Amino acid sequence: MTERDEYERVFESVRAWVEPDADEQARLTEAAAALLERTGEAIADLGVEADTILVGSTARGTWISGDRDIDVFVRFPESLAREELERFGLQIGATVLPDGQKEYAEHPYTKGDYDGFSVDLVPCYAVPTAADIKSAVDRTPFHTEYLDDHLTDDLAGEVRLAKQFLKGIGSYGSDLRTEGFSGYLTELLILEYGSLLAFLEAAADWKPPVKFDPENHGQRSFTDPLVVIDPTDPRRNVAAAVSPANVARLQHHARAFLVAPSETMFIPATPDPLNTDQVRMAIDRRGTIPIAVRFETPDIVEDQLYPQLRKSIEGMASELDRRGFDVLRTATFAAETAVLFAELEVASRPAIERHEGPPVHVREHATGFYEKYADDPDAFGPFIDGDRYVVERDREFTTARAFLESEALFDVALGATIQRQVEKEYEVLAGSDVADLAGEFGAQLAHYFSPKP
Amino acid sequence: MTERDEYERVFESVRAWVEPDADEQARLTEAAAALLERTGEAIADLGVEADTILVGSTARGTWISGDRDIDVFVRFPESLAREELERFGLQIGATVLPDGQKEYAEHPYTKGDYDGFSVDLVPCYAVPTAADIKSAVDRTPFHTEYLDDHLTDDLAGEVRLAKQFLKGIGSYGSDLRTEGFSGYLTELLILEYGSLLAFLEAAADWKPPVKFDPENHGQRSFTDPLVVIDPTDPRRNVAAAVSPANVARLQHHARAFLVAPSETMFIPATPDPLNTDQVRMAIDRRGTIPIAVRFETPDIVEDQLYPQLRKSIEGMASELDRRGFDVLRTATFAAETAVLFAELEVASRPAIERHEGPPVHVREHATGFYEKYADDPDAFGPFIDGDRYVVERDREFTTARAFLESEALFDVALGATIQRQVEKEYEVLAGSDVADLAGEFGAQLAHYFSPKP
Repeated sequence: MTERDEYERVFESVRAWVEPDADEQARLTEAAAALLERTGEAIADLGVEADTILVGSTARGTWISGDRDIDVFVRFPESLAREELERFGLQIGATVLPDGQKEYAEHPYTKGDYDGFSVDLVPCYAVPTAADIKSAVDRTPFHTEYLDDHLTDDLAGEVRLAKQFLKGIGSYGSDLRTEGFSGYLTELLILEYGSLLAFLEAAADWKPPVKFDPENHGQRSFTDPLVVIDPTDPRRNVAAAVSPANVARLQHHARAFLVAPSETMFIPATPDPLNTDQVRMAIDRRGTIPIAVRFETPDIVEDQLYPQLRKSIEGMASELDRRGFDVLRTATFAAETAVLFAELEVASRPAIERHEGPPVHVREHATGFYEKYADDPDAFGPFIDGDRYVVERDREFTTARAFLESEALFDVALGATIQRQVEKEYEVLAGSDVADLAGEFGAQLAHYFSPKP
Repeated sequence: MTERDEYERVFESVRAWVEPDADEQARLTEAAAALLERTGEAIADLGVEADTILVGSTARGTWISGDRDIDVFVRFPESLAREELERFGLQIGATVLPDGQKEYAEHPYTKGDYDGFSVDLVPCYAVPTAADIKSAVDRTPFHTEYLDDHLTDDLAGEVRLAKQFLKGIGSYGSDLRTEGFSGYLTELLILEYGSLLAFLEAAADWKPPVKFDPENHGQRSFTDPLVVIDPTDPRRNVAAAVSPANVARLQHHARAFLVAPSETMFIPATPDPLNTDQVRMAIDRRGTIPIAVRFETPDIVEDQLYPQLRKSIEGMASELDRRGFDVLRTATFAAETAVLFAELEVASRPAIERHEGPPVHVREHATGFYEKYADDPDAFGPFIDGDRYVVERDREFTTARAFLESEALFDVALGATIQRQVEKEYEVLAGSDVADLAGEFGAQLAHYFSPKP
């Protein structure tokens, strides 16, 4: 048994770097207050009806020292037309953050810097309850209000520890690349369990599906491995974005921490990037046939890019499997270029492939099949196996490279934007040539070739 | 439409060589009569109670010109002990066929030459009906009696044509190598249809399972593709030995004959044997990886050898598949040596293989799995895929040759006698080395590399 004070010693040490000090808190409070004031003035100048609210972790006092994000929401009346809301929102944004940029989520908002902080200024509707929202952002103020009512300072400290733990294991963030735990989800889980230690002790024993319903809404059922019904909106699972792998990852690291608590677990691992020689050695050692399709990364946001990369590699892998090249593992990488990477078990297939015809007793089909191949000089057979005709005919592609370099690649179910990009230009790397990827993706390859939970 | 007289022209031409002429008939009749007389005398000399009966195709007038087989059965009373029956049977055999040899089926009988004919002298029990038999041979006299009552001379002629057709397509013989149509089954099918042409017209349209019950016994149901209830024994499917492939083969050739009747279809195809260069060229063209396990043919009868070879190659192929070498097609050959032959699609697999662990949430198993591999320097992982641990660990055999040359071959479900033989000594041929088999199995390899229905 690990003693409680061993855990406490680790937590104490992590608190030292995740808790903002008085100075940092004061600077944030000041900047937030100034932003709210400037926003109020901009609203008044514009002569529109609206109020302002500070949301997110800085509003809730659960931000981690060093985070520089301030989220200001501007709430307009429900009666306002959507186009008006977007126009007013951007006008206020331009006034408050003169150097800001227009960004797009469900509707446009403004992103800019203020006094060293990164500020999002987001227009939304003032709806009576979270169940009445017109767009996803309308829900956010309710989350802040709910947590304002429930989160004590002690719990806020535990939230910080929990967020840092999830960051350390790579499971923090509900973006579609990470598919992990959002800040709000982490806050609700700490509300549920009371402390990070209690959360980890419970998670170590979870038997998914795991369900929480803090406000006992109990209206809908969900099929996700982790279900936390939003206390402000019964129809929503706050954990819907969490992948099964991230639930498993949390369970793994929770157990590891309980056995041997260490503050290093709160720090994301960054393996040394591999160089080309090291990639070649890894391939040699494994005896696999790696293959990569590489193209210029399309200019879309990460929340679009990563799901499309995943869809594309799944489509490509399933077609490589179907064609007999037996995919061992896949990955996708993206920076300047993007890569669909697959490690194959089979280097090549024979010149011929088995092609089963109909049972001989299905006379019309069977005769059609027999006549199609009987005089084909490139086919072996037809012959009879069991009750069927079988022929051995030429295979379309004997290597994965030949397939990927052909137009047949475009018949694979790739993500739509990826498809357009690949149709413009792409290159195929095969075998030890994939080592060239180390220049741009050495860190990702290090992760790939030394996989960890 | 093919005219009836085109078929008749072909049948007429085949009749010319399958119908024994008057001279051949006379010689057979004479030899059979003499044998029955000698057998009667031997019975009398021995002072036992028994009678004799001529059975088989020579008795029924359905033999094909050139066949030299005469089957004489000696029927003893049911009260006689089995050992006595066997002893008396062999004593009579020794008297009638002084140069004969003892052979074994369900019980011993005598095989010998008489006046240029090959004679089987078989003891059996005189049971009241075929349903009362004590061993399979007791049934045979009933078949002869049934056909004596039903088979006209015209039908006997059609039986000869049908047998020769089945010989031509390689489907004649109920031995366990051929798994085809026995003489008795052919006779019953001709009784059913009235002529070879009607039989072929019907077979071309068969939708297996096809069932006949000439005497409307209707007692039992069978799962074979072709079911012909023995008119003399309701419990028996005369076509039980016919494989699905031979049913399909008959259907294929029946259709081919109806479209383009030709007497060449009545002659078994004998492709020219391949030499080693030709085998090498075939392998090159196909791009496959052939592999063979070769050993001295065990000294057992064909009806034991071929089923055991089939069981062995099935066991070997299923293990090759399981280990990722993807079997395209298999064959077995037997002469002085016997060969388990498999043509593979995959030359080698990587040094590592994927090994899935339990779902992470199954805490005890999952932790056991993780700890087993976490410190294994040869393993990649464990990592998390979906909700499971996965590890990439060293693969036992990266080539089929390495597997077949190892003791692991003996864990395959081989036939018992084959297993003992292989454990004594065997060699593995792989890739172009299998061309060495052409010396002993050139004809079989010709058939293998030019497969026909």
